Amino acid sequence: MSKVLKGIAASDGIATAEAYMLVEPDLSFDKKTIENPDEEIQRLHSAIDASKKELETIKEKAKENLGEEEAEVFEAHLTILSDPEMIGQIETKINDEKINAESALKDVTDTFISMFEAMTDNAYMQERAGDIRDVTKRVLSHLLGVTLPSPALIDKEVIIVAHDLTPSDTAQLDRRYVKGFVTDIGGRTSHSAIMSRTLEIPAVVGSESATEAIHEGDQVIIDGIHGEAIVKPSADEVREYEQKAKDFAAQKAEWEQLKNEKSVTADGKEVILAANIGTPQDVEGANDNGAEAVGLFRSEFLYMDASELPSEDDQFEAYKEALEGMNGKQVVVRTMDIGGDKKLPYLPLPDEQNPFLGYRAIRLCLDQQEIFRTQLRALLRASKYGKLAIMFPMIATVQEFKNAKEIFEEEKAALVAKGVEVADDIQVGMMMEIPAAAMIADKLAKYADFFSIGTNDLIQYSMAADRGNERVSYLYQPTNPSILRLVKNIIDASHKEGKWTGMCGEMAGDQTAVPLLLGLGLDEYSMSATSILKTRSFIKKLSTEKMKELVNKALDCETEAEVQALVKEYTK
Amino acid sequence: MSKVLKGIAASDGIATAEAYMLVEPDLSFDKKTIENPDEEIQRLHSAIDASKKELETIKEKAKENLGEEEAEVFEAHLTILSDPEMIGQIETKINDEKINAESALKDVTDTFISMFEAMTDNAYMQERAGDIRDVTKRVLSHLLGVTLPSPALIDKEVIIVAHDLTPSDTAQLDRRYVKGFVTDIGGRTSHSAIMSRTLEIPAVVGSESATEAIHEGDQVIIDGIHGEAIVKPSADEVREYEQKAKDFAAQKAEWEQLKNEKSVTADGKEVILAANIGTPQDVEGANDNGAEAVGLFRSEFLYMDASELPSEDDQFEAYKEALEGMNGKQVVVRTMDIGGDKKLPYLPLPDEQNPFLGYRAIRLCLDQQEIFRTQLRALLRASKYGKLAIMFPMIATVQEFKNAKEIFEEEKAALVAKGVEVADDIQVGMMMEIPAAAMIADKLAKYADFFSIGTNDLIQYSMAADRGNERVSYLYQPTNPSILRLVKNIIDASHKEGKWTGMCGEMAGDQTAVPLLLGLGLDEYSMSATSILKTRSFIKKLSTEKMKELVNKALDCETEAEVQALVKEYTK
Repeated sequence: MSKVLKGIAASDGIATAEAYMLVEPDLSFDKKTIENPDEEIQRLHSAIDASKKELETIKEKAKENLGEEEAEVFEAHLTILSDPEMIGQIETKINDEKINAESALKDVTDTFISMFEAMTDNAYMQERAGDIRDVTKRVLSHLLGVTLPSPALIDKEVIIVAHDLTPSDTAQLDRRYVKGFVTDIGGRTSHSAIMSRTLEIPAVVGSESATEAIHEGDQVIIDGIHGEAIVKPSADEVREYEQKAKDFAAQKAEWEQLKNEKSVTADGKEVILAANIGTPQDVEGANDNGAEAVGLFRSEFLYMDASELPSEDDQFEAYKEALEGMNGKQVVVRTMDIGGDKKLPYLPLPDEQNPFLGYRAIRLCLDQQEIFRTQLRALLRASKYGKLAIMFPMIATVQEFKNAKEIFEEEKAALVAKGVEVADDIQVGMMMEIPAAAMIADKLAKYADFFSIGTNDLIQYSMAADRGNERVSYLYQPTNPSILRLVKNIIDASHKEGKWTGMCGEMAGDQTAVPLLLGLGLDEYSMSATSILKTRSFIKKLSTEKMKELVNKALDCETEAEVQALVKEYTK
Repeated sequence: MSKVLKGIAASDGIATAEAYMLVEPDLSFDKKTIENPDEEIQRLHSAIDASKKELETIKEKAKENLGEEEAEVFEAHLTILSDPEMIGQIETKINDEKINAESALKDVTDTFISMFEAMTDNAYMQERAGDIRDVTKRVLSHLLGVTLPSPALIDKEVIIVAHDLTPSDTAQLDRRYVKGFVTDIGGRTSHSAIMSRTLEIPAVVGSESATEAIHEGDQVIIDGIHGEAIVKPSADEVREYEQKAKDFAAQKAEWEQLKNEKSVTADGKEVILAANIGTPQDVEGANDNGAEAVGLFRSEFLYMDASELPSEDDQFEAYKEALEGMNGKQVVVRTMDIGGDKKLPYLPLPDEQNPFLGYRAIRLCLDQQEIFRTQLRALLRASKYGKLAIMFPMIATVQEFKNAKEIFEEEKAALVAKGVEVADDIQVGMMMEIPAAAMIADKLAKYADFFSIGTNDLIQYSMAADRGNERVSYLYQPTNPSILRLVKNIIDASHKEGKWTGMCGEMAGDQTAVPLLLGLGLDEYSMSATSILKTRSFIKKLSTEKMKELVNKALDCETEAEVQALVKEYTK
């Protein structure tokens, strides 16, 4: 009989294939005294040789399927396995202490790992620590006679089953073969969920029991639309989901038709559907999915993918590429949002009790102005290559906005004085993600050209609940009347001053939230590129007038549950 | 010439005395190889003996001046110095490694300290780690020939000068001799500032340079009213401040007259001035200072001063004592607010990235209901001994309040069914300290009997700035228009439903905030008991109608600086 696992719908679509268990086997062992060290050293070398052979195969496959860059990590693993220093130390330990190869291996590599990890200011060494950890697992698996999963070796269609997917796991996945995945943990905003949407692979996350309930080779259907995984489906179920998959494909094709259309409601109100991007390369996906603008360009990647502060020229090139790629459509760049949970190895920040309530984003930029000014100059110089808008993150007070804007004007004037060409229509706005700012949106609207509501942070601060903390995740309520009222306050204030408001959080592409946001008069909806066409299709069916009626009732609800019931009633 | 240090006025009053430098001397040393271990061991024993002698004196003095309990810590220190195991290890180290006594001492005690500190679930062992650290410092000071300050030995009037005052420092201070203090760091809500108000000692905190600018024995005047320390004052200045001290004493005497009066504005509006208390013993101070109620009884002390969860009977006795002590005046008890920065050694809580945004207060109580129900039963049983009100901390949604209230009703019904006498007029309200709750105050006012605004948390969440983090302390702006608007929302909502609103944060006793709060119609002002009479005197001079005019202008300001200028104008 089939078994249905319920989880969180992370990425649309339906897929059926055999399960591939991306689950680490039990690598525990006992420390043992051994009689014959030579024999034990022999075991060690056999395991190392087997690991090398395996890594060679994986490396070749990875090069073929994923590209040179993805394969490099395995080259690094091979280098470690050929390090005479490390292997010598393991041999000596076996000889001197008469312990089994597993223990000697683990003891020696642990020492190397903690040595490398202690170099906290050296990103390269930190990565090497991760590599040694991976290699140790591989050699251990051969010593213990168990098999380590190697996703890079997958050569047939599969559904990946994992406790969670790490960035290094997903880097090894071959899109041609991975038809879907299901994980035990994670929510809609977890790494694995975001990856699944970027790769357009149906996915269910947070199923709680996938790795226990599913076994290698089981047939699994992933319903990423409703957040269900059907394990060992019956023939009827297989037929049923084949039909559903066809329906979904037809729907996608229909959405595809909307690629070059405007985003207009049933009663003729036009809004902007924009894409959130992280690198200039993401512009391609934004265009492919019919984005009318980039509503959020997270400039952090420039800082996080680097080993030192990025130069003005490097930043200039990146912004120019994004602006040119969008062909005159607006690109809203958020200035550096480092701090909080985002650290840079080369920029020492204080340890904080509550980093989300700490020294980050504009607070850091107003304090360490050289970093900020460099970024602003790069943006200003790039401005002539397209339609640029800039926004400051984490603004809490009018004074902060004025200070940031003043620095912008100073840098602009300095460039102009030097004869550098700078666009004169750059809009300068701000993120609305702090409750205090939302409360004085009317005052801020006098200075900011636009607002962009960052829902993740706005909700987390308004509810005083860390969005990464599972124990308080029940308070992440995007459509709670309290949040809707703050959003209304922001939008109304901007309109009163003839300005506009966008939203660049998860909420902007959420099917429960969109009807409410339309009713509130939100101007721009910025989301994962892959959600745009679906949202455009959805909006076409909604009437602004009716949504206004809906939202007036919603603003007067007591709980999020009541709001959601109302939305259902109004959109059925 | 005299020197004036500016800082934050932490506690009213003026005092003049000689400086006592409560500053740790330089205890650094080099690791050295020595020739003669026996000689070194001899040095060690001399230092230990001198430390013991010193500790005996301190212990006797502490017993005499501060009481048996405060003296116990020195007994613990003496026990450590008589531990043959630890001293044996130091001797062995000197002998085996031929190193100086300083190094051997530090190495051995460091090992003990980290061993004890690793026992994170054992509060007793954690305290022992602190004791060993203190004892090591003392022995080191004798080895190095420097003097460690011993506040317990102070036997003449002094002004304490310190980088900061820790709870263990203040425990050793004899109120008869400590006339005032000045510290380098800390704000109005730091431990040292709160202590100074409780002890009614004039104090200036956050002077930045006191420990550098002042030397042992310098004459110092502390002006705790204006936040200034005058070092080596001229004869004129001494006379000037003698007069100011007299004026202040006269003013205090005048305030004293108001002890049994009501709190009425110049135009006849009556408000309630209440006290914040932490233990039932604080009720005495509340009554002495003319409190009309207890606006906040922090029930945490019951949990934090214990080695296991307090029993229902222990809690009952504490609540009963507080209620009886207040003689029928209302006592608002806040249910357990553990979590965040308040941990209990016997209640394991998850490690959190952002504890202030985490699993705490009502969130924990609704999850671990037995703890909550025990407290509610104790409160219900105590209710017949006075006028009890209960409030729940950290309510963010209507659902949370309803859930908490339902549990209260269940426990009440169960007690009544058992024949236990329970007051039938217990008001059940909630803390207003989360922005989302403030946004739906109108909805919450339908269920809660009253609101109590917790300004520290409300400001910290609204501004997304940890109040303990110095790098973002500029965002702690109680009178920013954003905060005033939230406060207005809360007060108006309660009045519309015929309910009342109090405030139990620092802001309620602040001279800049009180005029604004009067204008907003706040009903109850709960503060440190020692601030009540001064506030009552202040309120007598204010006209509600004029304050309404003030606050209407303030609500429309852009920045806190503008608001503060307005308040000055309206209260001069």
